[in-house]
Amino acid sequence: MANAGQGLVRKRVVVLGGGFGGINAAMGLAHMPIDVTLVDRKNHHTFQPLLYQVALAVLSPADIAQPIRSILREHKNIDVLMDEAVGFDVADRRVKLKSGSELEYDYLIVATGSTHSYFGNDEWAKLAPGLKTVEDATEIRRRVLLAFELAERQMLETGKHPGLNFVVVGGGPTGVELAGAISDISKLYMKKDFRHINPSTAKVMIVEGSPKLLAAYPPDLQAAAQRQLAELGVEVRLGVHVTDIQPGYVIANGEKIDSVCTLWAAGVQASPLGKLLGFETDRKGCVLVDKYLNPPGHPEIYICGDLAHVEQDGKQVPGVAQPAMQMGAYAAKRIGKMLAEERGSDGPRKDPGFRYFDKGDMATIGRKAAVAKIEWPFKAHWSGFPAWMTWLVVHVFFLIGFRNRLSVFRQWAWTYVTFSDGARLITGSQELPGWEVQEGVAEMLPVSAKPLDLGSPKSN
Amino acid sequence: MANAGQGLVRKRVVVLGGGFGGINAAMGLAHMPIDVTLVDRKNHHTFQPLLYQVALAVLSPADIAQPIRSILREHKNIDVLMDEAVGFDVADRRVKLKSGSELEYDYLIVATGSTHSYFGNDEWAKLAPGLKTVEDATEIRRRVLLAFELAERQMLETGKHPGLNFVVVGGGPTGVELAGAISDISKLYMKKDFRHINPSTAKVMIVEGSPKLLAAYPPDLQAAAQRQLAELGVEVRLGVHVTDIQPGYVIANGEKIDSVCTLWAAGVQASPLGKLLGFETDRKGCVLVDKYLNPPGHPEIYICGDLAHVEQDGKQVPGVAQPAMQMGAYAAKRIGKMLAEERGSDGPRKDPGFRYFDKGDMATIGRKAAVAKIEWPFKAHWSGFPAWMTWLVVHVFFLIGFRNRLSVFRQWAWTYVTFSDGARLITGSQELPGWEVQEGVAEMLPVSAKPLDLGSPKSN
Repeated sequence: MANAGQGLVRKRVVVLGGGFGGINAAMGLAHMPIDVTLVDRKNHHTFQPLLYQVALAVLSPADIAQPIRSILREHKNIDVLMDEAVGFDVADRRVKLKSGSELEYDYLIVATGSTHSYFGNDEWAKLAPGLKTVEDATEIRRRVLLAFELAERQMLETGKHPGLNFVVVGGGPTGVELAGAISDISKLYMKKDFRHINPSTAKVMIVEGSPKLLAAYPPDLQAAAQRQLAELGVEVRLGVHVTDIQPGYVIANGEKIDSVCTLWAAGVQASPLGKLLGFETDRKGCVLVDKYLNPPGHPEIYICGDLAHVEQDGKQVPGVAQPAMQMGAYAAKRIGKMLAEERGSDGPRKDPGFRYFDKGDMATIGRKAAVAKIEWPFKAHWSGFPAWMTWLVVHVFFLIGFRNRLSVFRQWAWTYVTFSDGARLITGSQELPGWEVQEGVAEMLPVSAKPLDLGSPKSN
Repeated sequence: MANAGQGLVRKRVVVLGGGFGGINAAMGLAHMPIDVTLVDRKNHHTFQPLLYQVALAVLSPADIAQPIRSILREHKNIDVLMDEAVGFDVADRRVKLKSGSELEYDYLIVATGSTHSYFGNDEWAKLAPGLKTVEDATEIRRRVLLAFELAERQMLETGKHPGLNFVVVGGGPTGVELAGAISDISKLYMKKDFRHINPSTAKVMIVEGSPKLLAAYPPDLQAAAQRQLAELGVEVRLGVHVTDIQPGYVIANGEKIDSVCTLWAAGVQASPLGKLLGFETDRKGCVLVDKYLNPPGHPEIYICGDLAHVEQDGKQVPGVAQPAMQMGAYAAKRIGKMLAEERGSDGPRKDPGFRYFDKGDMATIGRKAAVAKIEWPFKAHWSGFPAWMTWLVVHVFFLIGFRNRLSVFRQWAWTYVTFSDGARLITGSQELPGWEVQEGVAEMLPVSAKPLDLGSPKSN
């Protein structure tokens, strides 16, 4: 009787975070006899690997983001709550929410990911936006496009303009993708649109503090990436530390580098929830977990994705989409086994623990190049166009939501065929840090009788 | 010899505004021996008739907005400048720009349109956003979607939520379109996404100060619109004046009307440039012009679109897209004739002046109804589905840019076939005026064992 009664009380799982980890955990729990509440402060899941394409005006936010409710709509045992966890009582199994209420749980999955770290220089955030959210992407788009507009205006008014130098701080996959894409759009897409400046004179520089570009990749692919970036005209400076970011310039290794638009792709820190939980974290704020993804002494709590510090074969599992998805799925499966065990069958005792199955890693470099370290279904290192094609197929395939997949594919096809795109909207403010109106320089401005000669921007 | 010399000095036209008037003026001047500079503070032209579909999360901003540079890319005699006019010297033929410099002109076309008017209550702007720009549309989308999210959260936390009352102030075409669309999305698209609230209980109300809905339409279509809105469950209150807007409610004719989200579609005022020019304006700030669209004594200045007060057959030409397009085209043509006349042929003396050719007017009401007053190629008053089909064909046809046209059409087809859409992103703040976290009410929140019974939201 007690047993039967226990069977009727459904267990409760709270999932924090609607990124790759959280969504996959929720999906894994969807058909279990369990009640799930997924909490995210955004209403949408963001397909982060394609976020840089929104930042560079190729895709629209709706192409790569989808409301979490829509994704989980069919699963009646899952609630979605737009809110934010602000505290825990792990002894009493409760999560405190920003809205003031609390959620009780039997199992807790924390998958709130990571955000930029400015290494203590938080004042840099305004001068060098990073790329984690749809809002970030729109802000980067605004800044990059505005730099060209302001240069055109200044050229028209004064006959000269500051050099179109874009500095990307950080030489990981995001930095490489942003730099390649800025170089591409300035050379390919924008040259037809401006009369007075030559957008293809834009210079893109990657400044990376460590001696390696794409540190997580093998040396041959690092070299390939550097070669492909060089072909795009992107300057890569390795072992160079940024010590200051100001409007209009960056100080790196003591040198002042002019920058009309600085982007941040360097530091990453774990979500503050790691520390709030009260468990031991590494220096990035990732929670140290055991092989079951549990923090010590709490088999009912799972940490998934970027927030988890998981070691495997002596190396830390990287903070990218694939491990996060696998961790989320693992946590769900394990919770299912524990439920089954409570009902009498055996489960988790047989569990060898989480193991990251690495299918490989890819980073694009502009419009038709990439590097791909393929681990499955065969091992290979590819670069150039084959890597890029692989990247394209994999990313379209994994995009959540059929509509988005179709839409993104169509948009890409259109962009690549026509060399044009229609997402180059500047919304929000028309100011750019460091771009002052140069009082006194502005003179009487005749409508130009002919475009100023700046070499031969139009003919190539 | 003097004559030949004069022929070499190309005349300069400055076009202010990249809306329907300005774009059509620039297009009209594209192949003339003349230099054109189009100035807009935005980098994009917005197809305003479809803006409400962005506000209600059916379309993305990039579907209905296109960079002005892209639109005019092929026309080598046209410069595009992202800047803002802040003053004039009409005697000396100069425009002062916000960036500090000045533009000289031989001809000036001012087509900077109109914006919302809160009738002196500018503090209402934050509480009841209007719909003129892409930013406005994103803000309205954020508020409407957030109202549902916050209601769901509050329901989950406290077992009750404020009524989902949406108040639209103003019963013109924009008000009718917004109200119909909110009603539609709450009934059709959102019901599958929420577990605890029933989105189809949302109530939409139009509050209009005048005794007529869609005042510019004939009485039979006004009645048809009112009937169709009633079928959608939209309450229309006519002759009701809003005297205060506060977070969470509206005061109209002394009555307090609860509102989780108030939208403004009531007053319109002309761009401030009308007054800055120094000519006589009407009470909305529209410049009084003669039949050639010139303000008195200035045949070199043309006022086009919403900013122009043009009377025809005893009535003022309305401030909508069609007249703006025709005025822009007329101004360009007339400037062309004047140039030809200077060269010896005769031109403008034969000009009977601008005449608005009215092809009709349409307003949609939700997903498959509309009213259409057709004036050309035949005269008819349509309502319901035929009017809606007409609206759809006309709007897709007139969308500037082939890509957008295709994209919008596809998006619509998808939305109408699947009853779902993927543009329902909430970006920006997660606060909504009037939606306070109710301290103390929040209690321990068990993850719901089953959705609360609210009638039968799921079964219909």
